[in-house]
Amino acid sequence: MADHEIPDLPTAITPQSQDFGRWYIDVVRRAELADYSPVKGCMVIRPYGYAIWELMQQGLDKRFKATGHVNAYFPMFIPESLFMKEAEHVEGFAPEVAWVTHGGKEELEERLVVRPTSETIIGTMYAKWIQSWRDLPILINQWANVVRWEKVTRLFLRTTEFLWQEGHTAHETAEEAEEETRRMLAVYKNFAETELAMPVMDGLKTDSEKFAGADKTYSIEALMRDGRALQAGTSHNLGQNFAKGYDIKFQARDKSVQYAWTTSWGVSTRLIGGVIMTHGDEGGLILPPRIAPYQVVMIPIPRGNWKETVLPKAQEIRDALVAAGVRVMLDDRDSQTPGWKFNEWEMRGVPLRLEIGPKDLEKSTVVLARRDTREKSFVPMEGLVDHVQQLLTTIQQALFDRAVAFRAEHTTSTANYDEFKATMDGRPGFVIAPWCGSETCEAEIKTETQATIRNIPFGQEPPQGASCLKCAAPAVASAWFAKSY
Amino acid sequence: MADHEIPDLPTAITPQSQDFGRWYIDVVRRAELADYSPVKGCMVIRPYGYAIWELMQQGLDKRFKATGHVNAYFPMFIPESLFMKEAEHVEGFAPEVAWVTHGGKEELEERLVVRPTSETIIGTMYAKWIQSWRDLPILINQWANVVRWEKVTRLFLRTTEFLWQEGHTAHETAEEAEEETRRMLAVYKNFAETELAMPVMDGLKTDSEKFAGADKTYSIEALMRDGRALQAGTSHNLGQNFAKGYDIKFQARDKSVQYAWTTSWGVSTRLIGGVIMTHGDEGGLILPPRIAPYQVVMIPIPRGNWKETVLPKAQEIRDALVAAGVRVMLDDRDSQTPGWKFNEWEMRGVPLRLEIGPKDLEKSTVVLARRDTREKSFVPMEGLVDHVQQLLTTIQQALFDRAVAFRAEHTTSTANYDEFKATMDGRPGFVIAPWCGSETCEAEIKTETQATIRNIPFGQEPPQGASCLKCAAPAVASAWFAKSY
Repeated sequence: MADHEIPDLPTAITPQSQDFGRWYIDVVRRAELADYSPVKGCMVIRPYGYAIWELMQQGLDKRFKATGHVNAYFPMFIPESLFMKEAEHVEGFAPEVAWVTHGGKEELEERLVVRPTSETIIGTMYAKWIQSWRDLPILINQWANVVRWEKVTRLFLRTTEFLWQEGHTAHETAEEAEEETRRMLAVYKNFAETELAMPVMDGLKTDSEKFAGADKTYSIEALMRDGRALQAGTSHNLGQNFAKGYDIKFQARDKSVQYAWTTSWGVSTRLIGGVIMTHGDEGGLILPPRIAPYQVVMIPIPRGNWKETVLPKAQEIRDALVAAGVRVMLDDRDSQTPGWKFNEWEMRGVPLRLEIGPKDLEKSTVVLARRDTREKSFVPMEGLVDHVQQLLTTIQQALFDRAVAFRAEHTTSTANYDEFKATMDGRPGFVIAPWCGSETCEAEIKTETQATIRNIPFGQEPPQGASCLKCAAPAVASAWFAKSY
Repeated sequence: MADHEIPDLPTAITPQSQDFGRWYIDVVRRAELADYSPVKGCMVIRPYGYAIWELMQQGLDKRFKATGHVNAYFPMFIPESLFMKEAEHVEGFAPEVAWVTHGGKEELEERLVVRPTSETIIGTMYAKWIQSWRDLPILINQWANVVRWEKVTRLFLRTTEFLWQEGHTAHETAEEAEEETRRMLAVYKNFAETELAMPVMDGLKTDSEKFAGADKTYSIEALMRDGRALQAGTSHNLGQNFAKGYDIKFQARDKSVQYAWTTSWGVSTRLIGGVIMTHGDEGGLILPPRIAPYQVVMIPIPRGNWKETVLPKAQEIRDALVAAGVRVMLDDRDSQTPGWKFNEWEMRGVPLRLEIGPKDLEKSTVVLARRDTREKSFVPMEGLVDHVQQLLTTIQQALFDRAVAFRAEHTTSTANYDEFKATMDGRPGFVIAPWCGSETCEAEIKTETQATIRNIPFGQEPPQGASCLKCAAPAVASAWFAKSY
């Protein structure tokens, strides 16, 4: 059983400045967001981490529905012969799928793939459902688990099984498919920046980095506090590739038979990793209020007959906050000291701490302590609910502003390859550089520096007459490079 | 590819009175709740069916959280050696699991089970997380897909993959575990009756029908309109069986080391099948308003310049209903006649139809037509929102009352085996009968009549001196028998 053993939880968190990777894993495990499991490469998402995912799901699902999408559910198993119909897709995914070969005691006649993504099974159904242009567009999203057989895994960022949503749409024209692809990218950007306080750069992936089987892949890319980029979401224009592979045809307005134009787009539990690495500090996690399972932790100061005096008042405040829609944890445990609780909830990233003791009762005030700035203030009980709500809005904005500033500090621009290499060696971040469009240059840069083109942002033309960072040929794009997760 | 072919949608619905089984499948497919997939035994839950599931999830999740539970997510794969640790559980589930044997190009060192249920993987994690009585209780629920390799499948009712929730809790004492098991059964009963308008009988399963590895299984059982029972939810007291198999131990208050007491409980997408077969009629589906994706369908009558007159008024009414929290579909398609739309939405079970035409505009009224009774009434536009909301409440209650009445009509009581057999042959339903408690009698009754003991309801003692339906030995219980799904 040694294989299935799970290491004990770390007792302390490795300083971020000492080892960012260790810091990350320590925070994930100590804050009880996720844990290793007895299944190689698979994680357990613990209740505190799952509550963040539920809030993310709500924020996304609301946006999907507002843009006309509906949810559905498709089988997780895909027969091998069906999976194999789109050549590039197969080449991209076949090396990393899990295979089901037996059901009960019997060997299956045809092996089944555990979905790494669902274009193939959904495309098969769309072919059945779509007959006429009147059946279009189809705008479906699925919340599901998917499996990709990864060699090296890291909690939330890359695991064999993960949770995600995958949108799959079919359209009458190429223009509509492109519009949808870009619309959903914009939805992701809005979600990441509004809900996660995580600024992202949106743009086009290069051909070498696009989704297997796509015409175009767009992505949003965020910058983590160690200077590495994280691909936080992708939106693919699949052209007619899958429609041809899976025979998704319709009778057009002019009575001709046409292949549909399809798109797909997804974000995953990886976003939780992005939040941790965008906002966290030496004290541990810092959660943006909009996705914090507890926005306020209340800690009563246990002096004298506090259970008869402080506690009822604390409960009254808790109830008022909850009634106003604030997510509150009143930590009234006897077994721990206030100091221990301060540390614990700080490490777990609760945006706002509310302390209340006998002295506060006398003065009709409470203490509010911000997690992001660690500022403490005395606040009158009168008008407290409004004050807390405003402060949560302030914290959300402050986290976003701080992340934007961090990104600005860690984004440089150069056309000089030596300077580029020095940056990637030293204090990495985004580097904007002119690129000739050649896959060879892209690949050489990656080999020599580990940096990849994260994407080509919209509306950023290379300077007039600029030449490629690597080969000095005329630049066709201003690309954002970074080392990445 | 013949294997993967999906039959075309039925053009008409087989009458319920002619072939209930065909009627059911026709309704599921024609109403676009679910469809066959190219994967043997697996279904696609289409948007209209999935929207019902989302409403069910909300109703359940709210109740789980109100009773102190939190959500989490555990790996879908379970290493074979871990799966094998609780003997009865293995015996019950091993014949019906799917096996993953290869990842990418490589054969796995240890095969993985695709979870048929998660006691084993969750138990393994609980063993890690629980050290002291202070860590108890653990009250976790998971929303997930599970796989059971079924030979005979039927959309929603029995499929190889299905969606469900599974609660898994660990407690300090046997009493607390029993209390939890019963609490969640009561939550299920309340949910089924309040949200689904589906009356259920709650009680204890016999030993031969209990969950593999449980000390006790409780169930809720509903009666379908063909007189067969449907097990709609189960709640298991697992005693210390899984704690012993998976080493879930804790230091008790008296410092001794004890095994925890665990429970599990689940309901699935099968409930959608239950709703269809509880309320549906010859016209198709009838949805209880609380879980209807559209509670009201609005159909404008296209006469004269209706787009300038009727349509704007219809949109105004739609907006007012939506603002009041009513789920509304305004079917303003040009391509279909009102008559076609009446039939279509009737078949799809929308509880209330609102018709509005030029004459209604003149009189400032609309027509409301109930799906359940087909009653039509002219209702003034003034106060319409309130009227609609009241009518939806009335329909919800009427559906429940009708189902209760149907069950009463189809529940008989007998201690005479010939009478019992005649009932099961003719017009089946629940039969309450005295039973001696022997598995032999239970098995013989099943062989001879196909009827099984659905459960032993709470608080229904057998009459004084009653003897077993089958063997005439003294009865120990008053059991509810039925043929079942």
